[in-house]
Amino acid sequence: MTKREKPGLSIRIDLPGGGRFGPGKAALLDAIADLGSINKAATHLGMSYPRAKKLVEEMNRDFGAPLIISAQGGADGGGSRLTETAENIRNIYRDLCNRSLAHNKALLASLCRPKSGD
Amino acid sequence: MTKREKPGLSIRIDLPGGGRFGPGKAALLDAIADLGSINKAATHLGMSYPRAKKLVEEMNRDFGAPLIISAQGGADGGGSRLTETAENIRNIYRDLCNRSLAHNKALLASLCRPKSGD
Repeated sequence: MTKREKPGLSIRIDLPGGGRFGPGKAALLDAIADLGSINKAATHLGMSYPRAKKLVEEMNRDFGAPLIISAQGGADGGGSRLTETAENIRNIYRDLCNRSLAHNKALLASLCRPKSGD
Repeated sequence: MTKREKPGLSIRIDLPGGGRFGPGKAALLDAIADLGSINKAATHLGMSYPRAKKLVEEMNRDFGAPLIISAQGGADGGGSRLTETAENIRNIYRDLCNRSLAHNKALLASLCRPKSGD
């Protein structure tokens, strides 16, 4: 892993029903959107297919609506794409992360000011 | 675990040097401040003493300054307290969490609107 140059934030949303949505699930939605397949997205993220399926099922349950539509053709063979609900969640999460970082730049800078001797 | 009524945020700061500061370390600083002892803080959080010591050492390294001052008297027997650096980090983290939640209330509400049939 390369070291960061600037401080960053990793944000997890703790949902009212007990579910969680954070960087891992956001990256999975992004990868499915980009690659058109849960299987390819899992491979891209170094995640097993069963693990990716489990995360998709958790999201479907937590948000009370399907997030992924899979076409016919075996285990993800026909490809998968995000529903409008998933696109909405993806956009909201991205906005939330960008806004949190933007609103806290000064605070983060004060936390990470250069130390003498480094 | 009880279920949340409102959505919340769990925020981790990813520091430039590769370190991380999030809810767990913040809770440890809070508990040491409240209880005056790493040992009591660890017990309060259901954490082992070696684990708590390890987290304190990580923070000392990541922020380049001691965060905890331990008085003489065996393994934490004389008590411990936060340094000014630690108090500063604690305040910054709390501000950052509060601000992120405040600035994103509308976004979070739109993510967690009640679903019909629930």
